Order: sequence, then C-alpha cells, then structure tokens
Amino acid sequence: MEQTAGAPPVIFETSPERYQHWKLTVEGNIATLGMDVREDAGMRPNDYKLKLNSYDLGVDIELADVLQRLRFEHPEVHAVVLTSLKPRIFCAGANIFMLGTSNHGFKVNFCKFTNETRLGMEDMSARSGIKFLAAVNGICAGGGYELALACDEILLVDDGSASVGLPETPLLGVLPGTGGLTRVVDKRKVRRDLADDFSTLSEGLRGKRAVEGRFVDAVYPTSKFQDAVAKRARELAELSDRPKSGPGISLGPLSPAIDGDTITYKYVTGVIDRAKRTCDLTIAAPGSYAAEEVPTTPDEYQAAGDQAWAIRAFRELDDALLRLRLNEPEIGTIILRAAGDPKAVLAVDASLDANQSHWLVREIVSHIRRTLKRVDLTSRSFFALIEPGNAFAGTLFELALASDRAYMLDHPDEPNTIELSAMNGGAYPMSNGLTRLEVRFLGEPDAVGRALAHGAPCDAETALDAGLVFSAPDDIDWDDEVRMALEARAAFSPDALTGMEANLRFAGPETMETKIFGRLTAWQNWIFQRPNAVGERGALTTYGREGRATFDFKRT
Amino acid sequence: MEQTAGAPPVIFETSPERYQHWKLTVEGNIATLGMDVREDAGMRPNDYKLKLNSYDLGVDIELADVLQRLRFEHPEVHAVVLTSLKPRIFCAGANIFMLGTSNHGFKVNFCKFTNETRLGMEDMSARSGIKFLAAVNGICAGGGYELALACDEILLVDDGSASVGLPETPLLGVLPGTGGLTRVVDKRKVRRDLADDFSTLSEGLRGKRAVEGRFVDAVYPTSKFQDAVAKRARELAELSDRPKSGPGISLGPLSPAIDGDTITYKYVTGVIDRAKRTCDLTIAAPGSYAAEEVPTTPDEYQAAGDQAWAIRAFRELDDALLRLRLNEPEIGTIILRAAGDPKAVLAVDASLDANQSHWLVREIVSHIRRTLKRVDLTSRSFFALIEPGNAFAGTLFELALASDRAYMLDHPDEPNTIELSAMNGGAYPMSNGLTRLEVRFLGEPDAVGRALAHGAPCDAETALDAGLVFSAPDDIDWDDEVRMALEARAAFSPDALTGMEANLRFAGPETMETKIFGRLTAWQNWIFQRPNAVGERGALTTYGREGRATFDFKRT
Repeated sequence: MEQTAGAPPVIFETSPERYQHWKLTVEGNIATLGMDVREDAGMRPNDYKLKLNSYDLGVDIELADVLQRLRFEHPEVHAVVLTSLKPRIFCAGANIFMLGTSNHGFKVNFCKFTNETRLGMEDMSARSGIKFLAAVNGICAGGGYELALACDEILLVDDGSASVGLPETPLLGVLPGTGGLTRVVDKRKVRRDLADDFSTLSEGLRGKRAVEGRFVDAVYPTSKFQDAVAKRARELAELSDRPKSGPGISLGPLSPAIDGDTITYKYVTGVIDRAKRTCDLTIAAPGSYAAEEVPTTPDEYQAAGDQAWAIRAFRELDDALLRLRLNEPEIGTIILRAAGDPKAVLAVDASLDANQSHWLVREIVSHIRRTLKRVDLTSRSFFALIEPGNAFAGTLFELALASDRAYMLDHPDEPNTIELSAMNGGAYPMSNGLTRLEVRFLGEPDAVGRALAHGAPCDAETALDAGLVFSAPDDIDWDDEVRMALEARAAFSPDALTGMEANLRFAGPETMETKIFGRLTAWQNWIFQRPNAVGERGALTTYGREGRATFDFKRT
Repeated sequence: MEQTAGAPPVIFETSPERYQHWKLTVEGNIATLGMDVREDAGMRPNDYKLKLNSYDLGVDIELADVLQRLRFEHPEVHAVVLTSLKPRIFCAGANIFMLGTSNHGFKVNFCKFTNETRLGMEDMSARSGIKFLAAVNGICAGGGYELALACDEILLVDDGSASVGLPETPLLGVLPGTGGLTRVVDKRKVRRDLADDFSTLSEGLRGKRAVEGRFVDAVYPTSKFQDAVAKRARELAELSDRPKSGPGISLGPLSPAIDGDTITYKYVTGVIDRAKRTCDLTIAAPGSYAAEEVPTTPDEYQAAGDQAWAIRAFRELDDALLRLRLNEPEIGTIILRAAGDPKAVLAVDASLDANQSHWLVREIVSHIRRTLKRVDLTSRSFFALIEPGNAFAGTLFELALASDRAYMLDHPDEPNTIELSAMNGGAYPMSNGLTRLEVRFLGEPDAVGRALAHGAPCDAETALDAGLVFSAPDDIDWDDEVRMALEARAAFSPDALTGMEANLRFAGPETMETKIFGRLTAWQNWIFQRPNAVGERGALTTYGREGRATFDFKRT
C-alpha cells in the first residue's frame, strides 16, 4: 500500500464473522445495519483512532461487503434501517487524522470507493427493491451525513443534540466530497442558498430547521423515534418486489493465489509487468478450465450459487480492479483480454436475458453492471486486445466497449471474431444512463441498432467497419502497433491521462452519479492538493492540533 | 496583476484601432476575422514571444472585443470566417511559455475567460444568427484547434502540412482544457477511442483522416480551398435572420474613474475593503443620476446606442467582474446591491420583453444573459444585500438569484420590496439551460410559476415565504447578521469555497457548457498544480528547454 511505506496491501474481501464495525440483524423483511466502529481497529491503528463512529477504508470495505451480502444472501430483506449502535453519535464521517496522514492518491481512491458504495445503495433502491432508511439517532456529520443522504429517507431524533451537518468547509477546508454537495442540491433538491448556509455551519442543523430545509424527512422526539423508524421501515418494505423469503445464495471467499506479480482467481488472472507498468488482466469464459453447465433457469442459478460464472467471474474482476487501484498506483495501463469459448458467454447471456425478472438473476446482472461501471471509473488506461481464441462476446464485449481502445487482430489464417448479444442492448447502462454502445455512437445513433441487429460473429474487418473496435492490424503489424501504443501510453503524464480519460469516457448526458465523479470529485481532488488543505498550515493538517489553519486567501 | 509582482492590472477594454493581433474585414454579409498575432506584443513581452500565432490573455481580450462589436456594430454580418493571416500556421494554441511563467490562479482565470469567449461564439451561432466557419489554412494545434471547435464548421486545407491536433497530453502533460476534450466528444460526437487516439498524437491529423474521424467537416486541396470557404460561408450566411444591412450601434469606451480602491463607472460602482476582503458592487437603476428616457421601441434603442442603460450597465458590470477576477484575487466576497427606482428597471424589462424579436434588443438581452453567466462562473462568493431604496426588480433581481445568498432587510418603517418581471421567466437561462428561478426551485417547481404570477412588489416577509431570499432580518438584527455572515465567509478556505460554490450553483441538468466549466475545468485545475505539470521537472516547466519532463508515474 502506497500511503505508508511497507504497509500491507489493502484486501477488499471480508465476511460477516470478521466484521469489526458493523452489526447486521434481520427481522422478517427488515434488516438493521448498526454502525459501531471499533476505535482501535483502523487500518493504520498507529496513525489514528476511529473515534465517534468515524470511518476509514476498512470500515467502508465492511459496509460494501454487507450490502453485497444483503443483495445475494438475503432476498427476504426489503428494507434496511441504517443506524448507530453508539449513544448520541450517528457517525462523525471520514476520520480526519486518517485523511491527514494519507497521501493524495489514497485519499482520492478512498473517496471514490466510498462514493461507489453509496451509489450502490441507491442502485439497490432503484433496481433491487431494497429501500434504505437512515435512523439518525445522534450527531451525523460530514461523511456520516453523506451516508444518510445515500438512503431513501432520513429520520432524525429530536433530542436537543442530534444533528445533521456538512462541516467540511468550515472545519477542514475541503469538500463534502462523497457525493455530499451533489446529493444535497440534486437528490434532495435543497435550495442553493440553504445548502450554502448549511455547508458552512460547523455545528449542523437540528430538529425542525433540518426538516424545513429538506435536509431530513422528519424529526421525532426520543420517545417516539424508534416506533416511527419501525413504522416507516415497514412502509418502505411494502414497496419491494423481492421474494417474501429466502433462501439466498452464499458468497464464499474468492481466495486468489498470489505469486509475485501474478494473481490467479478461478476465471480472472492478473499479471503485472513492472517495467512496462502494465497489468495483463484476462477473464476466462465459462468452461475454460473444466466442463461446466451454464445455468439456464432461476433454479439452476440458485443451485449453482456463487460458483455460477456470471457471479464469480465478475466478483473476481471487481476484486482485481480494486486491488490495482489501491495497491498498484504505478501500473498505468490495464490490458484486458477475454479468453475461451464465446458461445459459452453467449449462452450465459441468453439465460440472463431470459430470466431477468427473477430476483437472483436481477442481482447478477446488477453486479455485472456495477463492476463494469467500476471499469469506467478506474483512472487507469484500458486497452482491450482481441486475438484469436478470444471470448469478447455479449457481456464480455462490454469490457472492450469500456476500454479506451480495443485492438483486434485481423489474422489471415486464424479466425478471430467478436459478437454482440441482447445484453449489450440495455442491461448494463453506464453512470450517465446510456449504454456503452449508445455513448460510443452518439454521433451516428443508427449504428447502435445495426450493431445489435447483426446477430452473428463479426470478423476484424467487419468490426472495424461497424466502428466496434479502434484498430484492426494484420498479423504483420499487430505486435508493433500494440507495443508502440502501450509504450506511448506509458510515457505520458499519468495526471493528464487521468483527466483526459475522465472527460472522454462520459460523453452525452450527466446524471447525479456522473456529477459526483466528474464535477464534485474533480474539485475535491484539486482541493486535496492545495496548500490551504494539506500544506504545513493547511486545515486538514492542523485539524485537532494546536493553532488554527493559515490560508492564502487568493481565490482561483 | 498577480502573476508578476508589480505588473500593471489587466484591462479588458479595447477597441479596433488598438488591435495588435486580429484583422477584421467585412464584405457584404460575411466577415473575415484574420489572426495575425504580433510576436513581440504579448502581455509580458519579457517572459515570452507569441510565436506561431500562439496566444495569451491579451490576444483573447481582443478576440472577445471583436466578437462583441460584431454583435452590436455589424448587424449586417451573418457569417464569420475565422482564419490565419500567417502562412502555413493557423494557430499554435495558448503560449506555453506564458503558461509556464504564470501562477496557478492566472492560468485558471485565463482558461476560464477563453472558454467564455468561445462559448460566446456558440451563443452567437445559436441565438444571434451569426455562424462561424473555421478556415484552417495551416497547422492548428491545442488551443488553436479549440478555437476552430468553437466554430460551427471546420474546413481544412489539404496541403500536406496543415493539420488539426490536441497535443497537450503528449507534449505538455496538461489537458486541452479550453473545452477541447468536451467539444470533441460532446459537440462533434467523435467516438471515444478515436478521440483518445487523437488526443495523444503530438502531430495531429491531416487530410482525409481528419474528416473520417469527424475532427473537421471537409478538406480541400490548396487550389480549391479559398473558393470552398467562400461558398460555404455564403451558405451559412443564408441561414441568418439578422438584418440585411446596418447601421449597428457603436460601443464607446466605458472609461471608469479609478481612485484608490474605488472604481466608478456610470451605473456601476465598486469599492474594495481590503481588510474585510470584500468588494461592494452596486448597480444603479436607470435615471439614478440624471433624468433618463427608457427606450421603448427598437428605433429608440437604436438612437440611444451604447448609452441605453440595459447595454451600458451590464457592460460595466461585466468589466468590473473581469477586473476583480484577474486583478483582485484576495477579494473573496462580492456584495451586490441594486440601487434606485425599481420601476425604471421594470420599464426597461417591459421594453426588452416587447421587442425581443428585434436584432438589437435580442443582442442586448443576450449580453445581459452572458454577463449573468459570468457571475455564476466567477469563483467568488456573492452576497446580495436588499435594503430600502433597492432596485432588485426583474432583470436586476437575477443578480440576487445568481448570488450565493440574498439578505433582505425587513424594516418596520422603511418600505423594502423586490419584484419579478416577465424577464425572470426565461430570458436569462443559466449555462445548464434552466432559468435561475427553475434551478432555485428544483424541489418545488410550482414555486416558479407562483413567483412569476405574483405580479406585484413583495415585502421582505413575502419574499422570504416565497423562497426568493435567504434571510430577512429586521432592523435590529440586520447589521449583526450580515456582518457575521461576511466575517465567517472571509475566514473559510478560499479553495473550499470555490469548490463548494461550483457544485451548489449548478443543480439540475448539465450541458456541454457546464461540462466544460465543471468537469473539464476542474480536472485541468487539478492537473495545473500537479508536480508532473508544474514541478521543476514537470512537462509545462521543461517544454522547449533541454531535457525531458520527469514524471511520478503513480496514477491517482
């Protein structure tokens, strides 16, 4: 891990028996997710204590895990009450001493992951039939309020002390960057002057004033709070179309084998080349390593559980991407390959497409969709290499579409094709609400329908003519063209590439989600390196120490 | 001016007889705007030479002035051909040595002003009936291509050398930030992989390949280029609804009086308080200083010329804002007041509303609209103070709506009212396409219609209830509340305020325009302070010197 020399790499896999910070209880159709952060169990316990339910990446990794398990393991859960198990404090937000002692890249990636997790809650509400209710039973500040904002509704106890607030600007000289500002004005549609005032109050708002400004949905006195929460949770649960009862499927460990610079999962393999600063990331089609039945019915998916390729392969891909983000900052280009039998991928696509109304299949498709969004939002260059033996078909072709460039070998002797499926037509929208095909062909919208209607494998020439790949060199040029492209990429300023890709990948409309990652994150990243925040007398640096921050008051 | 100690302040006013870099010729309905930058006439001639038609802020100030004069002084111009008067070079973009020797704030404000100017060209195309044709008769790189992108169409000469390109990433480690990346994928809808490739080519694209990727609209061999340009310009001019002939109105100098920290125009007065880091900016209603006839017909507007309040007051406001941006970076809060007779403002509104189809009135409204956008995009806090004697009515009330907060004195004895007019209903959309009222009331859209239908002056209590102002203290609380708000604002991190305001001001949809200022600019600002760009071995620093840039290859 980058931020502390010699620190162990960040591991994103966890499981309930290892949770240190969250307690999940399920009663009937309602889950209660209680935050009870262990002060001494931060990721770098020597650098900071997680007081007042403040969080670090470790706390958020557990939250992401709980949410994933609610999706797959608890189909009977229709509503989630998010609350604190500590008295008088809901959540104090991201731990400031953690931020103050983290390097720029870690801060940015921490914020990105927490944003993705919170957007995952909103995705569950919009598409999985799981509603979230924040039961704010104490002080709820900064990232704590941002967590509440990610819920469908916020109920606040009126006990004279509980409050909601975004004190980043007055106290820390940074932004409520985990979606906070965007969610206030775009999701909750708070008036901009009220939002401006709110975001400059170090103490936040309590009681009726919080309701009047639309910062929370309701307040209740302490004596009525629990009943009100329970009642509203039942009402939200009523809205769900999830099954009345389980069983779900269990998510077992991925247990990748790590050998030097190679990580090997069942379907995904990553091989880092440090000299070239690349990672070869290959995802194998079903049946690549052993004969494998593709489930065709919901019952078969239920029986296959977490071993179904569609779940497992994308869980592995997700894990690999997160490890690269946090643990391998110098690996600038990810070379994506899909290997194996494209027909097996298309068979999966057919079964997913046919059963999308079943809760489990819906979750599988959602998980793939969210993993693909993780690719879009990963600030590394992605080059897809499509060579003979490739499995870039249907769902896996989305990886080529998500790449900054796709190179396809036009070999005179060895057949090399790609193919689309119905799943490319709408199952995996990007954060901006359009499919990757739609964004690709903004300038020639008819090309989307043509590509989807083709209905057969495309060779390299056809794919190039259809605009589906960037380049289709023949076998004589292939090695040189790919090598030179990778070498050129490795020589560019990594910051310019990050900015360039963040702008070129999201043509077309913007949504609350893309605003969080484009506008809000970019500003926060800017602020995160300004001396007024991180300099010797910056507000993040001096927080909690003697003396106040000293600002250079020039506006930019 | 900040970037060089002791340098004179930037002056934004200029006029054709003083142009050093541009030549305007008008033949019939077509203007030709020729770029011919004087190498030795940069704003800081000791720091850099403006070789190869590269530009600095001074070149762009002249461009903004030409465009403004085309609007008002040349109603007969229906199409503009933008071209170079130098052989084999169209424009090399922003001068790199200028960027390399400018501080962060200057770079950011330079980019913002150039973006506003280019968006002004697109505004002229969309709303004023003036189309732009880029006649690219030589190498067109970086900001040069961004200038061409701002035109409706781009014609390229095919002479074996002329090219278009965005070499910022490969050569400078920064972004094509003057709208470049956004315009490529959003305006011209170039496919993202082609845009990615294009943006990494230091040499750009020539001839047919530039057309195929949609980077230009057509190429012509040298022998046919001038005829093709002339023909297409005539066709574009045909689309115009501008008058067949003049006269226009002349824009005379504003000639503000500057006395220490006070700047006095005819209608606008600015007074800086350096200790408080505020500027009191007051705009006076028509007739505030002398009896004044408000024009009611197009002929009367034509006769009044640039002395009509609606033109002059907003030209003054625009100039004052630009001076504050560039010359007074430490003045963090702008206190807006409107003084005088609100009925006079409403009379102007009525005449503008009644004559919007006339070319001159259309330009006046457009100019007000663009000046108000300049407020939205100015990274200073705006507080409107609405006190007895105020003229915050109709068009001037947009200034209160554009402010981060509006305080309105609820005085028991002295009447104090605001009033809306038809002009608040759609004449002045923000960059995101919505009116300020619509953005304000995203959460209660009915309030927009209610406010517009009110049709009478609102006292402070009514305005507060209608959600039109932030706060309405009485005369006992007024001084303290306003003072404390200003003091609190002055104590916050200026960077956090810039980021916060950039996120809270633009709720709702995003457009190409807001993407340029939100997403693209924020990323560029981030990159502009990274050591990989501006460090001792950064790419901007080492450009044109011996040795190559040295990068820290960590991706963020």
